[in-house]
Amino acid sequence: MSRAYNFSAGPAMVPEAVLQQAQEELLDWQGSGMSVMEMSHRGKEYMSIATQAEADLRELMAIPENYKVLFLQGGASSQFAMVPLNLLGDKKTADYFNTGQWSKKAIAEAKRYCDVNLVASSEAENFCTIPDTANWNLNADAAYVHYTPNETIGGLEFQEIPEVGDVPLVADFSSTILSRPLDVSRYGIIYAGTQKNIGPAGMAVVIVREDLLGNAGDSTPAMFNYATHAKADSMYNTPPTYTWYFAGLVFKWLKQQGGLEAMAKINQGKAQALYNAIDTSDFYANPVDPRYRSWMNIPFTLADDGLNDTFLSEAKAANLVTLKGHRSVGGMRASIYNAMPEAGVQALIAFMKDFEQRKA
Amino acid sequence: MSRAYNFSAGPAMVPEAVLQQAQEELLDWQGSGMSVMEMSHRGKEYMSIATQAEADLRELMAIPENYKVLFLQGGASSQFAMVPLNLLGDKKTADYFNTGQWSKKAIAEAKRYCDVNLVASSEAENFCTIPDTANWNLNADAAYVHYTPNETIGGLEFQEIPEVGDVPLVADFSSTILSRPLDVSRYGIIYAGTQKNIGPAGMAVVIVREDLLGNAGDSTPAMFNYATHAKADSMYNTPPTYTWYFAGLVFKWLKQQGGLEAMAKINQGKAQALYNAIDTSDFYANPVDPRYRSWMNIPFTLADDGLNDTFLSEAKAANLVTLKGHRSVGGMRASIYNAMPEAGVQALIAFMKDFEQRKA
Repeated sequence: MSRAYNFSAGPAMVPEAVLQQAQEELLDWQGSGMSVMEMSHRGKEYMSIATQAEADLRELMAIPENYKVLFLQGGASSQFAMVPLNLLGDKKTADYFNTGQWSKKAIAEAKRYCDVNLVASSEAENFCTIPDTANWNLNADAAYVHYTPNETIGGLEFQEIPEVGDVPLVADFSSTILSRPLDVSRYGIIYAGTQKNIGPAGMAVVIVREDLLGNAGDSTPAMFNYATHAKADSMYNTPPTYTWYFAGLVFKWLKQQGGLEAMAKINQGKAQALYNAIDTSDFYANPVDPRYRSWMNIPFTLADDGLNDTFLSEAKAANLVTLKGHRSVGGMRASIYNAMPEAGVQALIAFMKDFEQRKA
Repeated sequence: MSRAYNFSAGPAMVPEAVLQQAQEELLDWQGSGMSVMEMSHRGKEYMSIATQAEADLRELMAIPENYKVLFLQGGASSQFAMVPLNLLGDKKTADYFNTGQWSKKAIAEAKRYCDVNLVASSEAENFCTIPDTANWNLNADAAYVHYTPNETIGGLEFQEIPEVGDVPLVADFSSTILSRPLDVSRYGIIYAGTQKNIGPAGMAVVIVREDLLGNAGDSTPAMFNYATHAKADSMYNTPPTYTWYFAGLVFKWLKQQGGLEAMAKINQGKAQALYNAIDTSDFYANPVDPRYRSWMNIPFTLADDGLNDTFLSEAKAANLVTLKGHRSVGGMRASIYNAMPEAGVQALIAFMKDFEQRKA
């Protein structure tokens, strides 16, 4: 089989050029006689890889100097606990938006450590919209405000940064980091698992404003304390060195594509094309409020659920894989992160039209 | 440069045959059209990789059925907190051996959660020996007994499993897991970071007796609760899929070498040869009590510290890399895990003899 167009929600596609470079240097990185994964993380070869990756990420996202960039293990799921453990300090409550399955997981974990004040919830609307700002219930005494800019499962996305006043804003950007420019200075903490829009699974990028460091209690595990990692430049313990290297290759690739302005145009175009194909059909449907549709994760249903298995098997035969929707939503889901080429989206649209003509 | 003999303490060498296989299938795993790192962890392709890796590890180590095998993020450093958080239950104290730098780190973290009773310490002897069993101070009321079978920095190793009665025995096997057969049934928990004797950094293997699960308190982060991961077969969140795959390739390679009995003979032979070279020389020295010398990490000093830099640069020119000792010990350190070929140890010995003849 040739390389497939893989619509997995994560782990997900990695740019082919990045895979090829990694393949070439897998046994010997730049004449070092070592694979990157064999290098001591404290040696000069690996340190050059790690620091370059951070520098490229800072450049891509225009991260201000008063933010630390951490490369940690444990994914976004560990952040769900690390955020309250590090930010609560003497406060007893935090604000959370509830806009989907990942919001709910973050909230469940926060409840171990504090009272959770729901700013707004779209659970009654099956997470297909975002409540109007007029109905938001922000608490000025909250330690922080947490939201999920993009819900990977529901395909729901905030198109603007929530206005929350002086309370630090914390966001789980796992599925949309690096998909477009972002004003980092609006945030206290941005975190993202790497396995959706960056590279392999097994790492989280955490961008944290320096004044928020140092407030974790004594019972916080050293590995769950941002200050531990900030002080050690993410090398308090052995970091996931190979994943970090891979992320660095992706950052370089993004710079070669023209950076995040260029990616934003491409990503918006891919999403627009797929939503158009869905909306101009009576056979396919997407349930999300058009004002808040995700650029990255596009769920859609077929008019006849009984055709789902046929759709999936024929799509696979056409080299379009991992399109099955999440079990909580059903139908299909196309995740089209940075690494999904425009040609992949066009191939999916062409297949969908052909399938509709034959089966509708 | 050709492939180097890399004596790094971790991350460390990976078997060349494993790297070659990974290189071949990096862009397309067995006709799937995907790199392993691009696969959904819940898809049937990846599930087959994950379950096979566990099955091979169980076979290699003869892990009894009443033990769960977990593949987690965060390395051994996260285990330092997870062990007390999961095992203390209603108890207030735990037993620890203090035999080196990694013991000390485990103890420091445990003190966040309980009183630490020192069973024995060789700190006064500069961690060059293990105290006699006659002087051990075991507490029958301890929640568990923790020790570090092999100290990577000091090169000190327990050659027998400590006899601790009915209290669960917990061990950090990061540097010696899979180096020889082990009676798993003697342990409550065995854990190991993967970056020394298994594969890439970014994962820990945790082998836990099932009756020890389920005792974590409500304030334990879900990601730090063994029960979370045991219930979800290590897929509560997205696991470090590519590292897990790599570990699986190493497990297959170990089976091809003849399993752990065969590896034990090879490893003992490699260590013996290097210790012989050191002991029969007046120029090199190893400070560790010969009864407790490590098979995996062999520190040695030169008679003249002023020659250290020359030794390292000439060794590098001879394709022998990452030999610098840990800053807390000085001199040199040769880490010779499973993936270090016998030829690599012979090359190091030949270089050492030549260097001595020229410089002594």
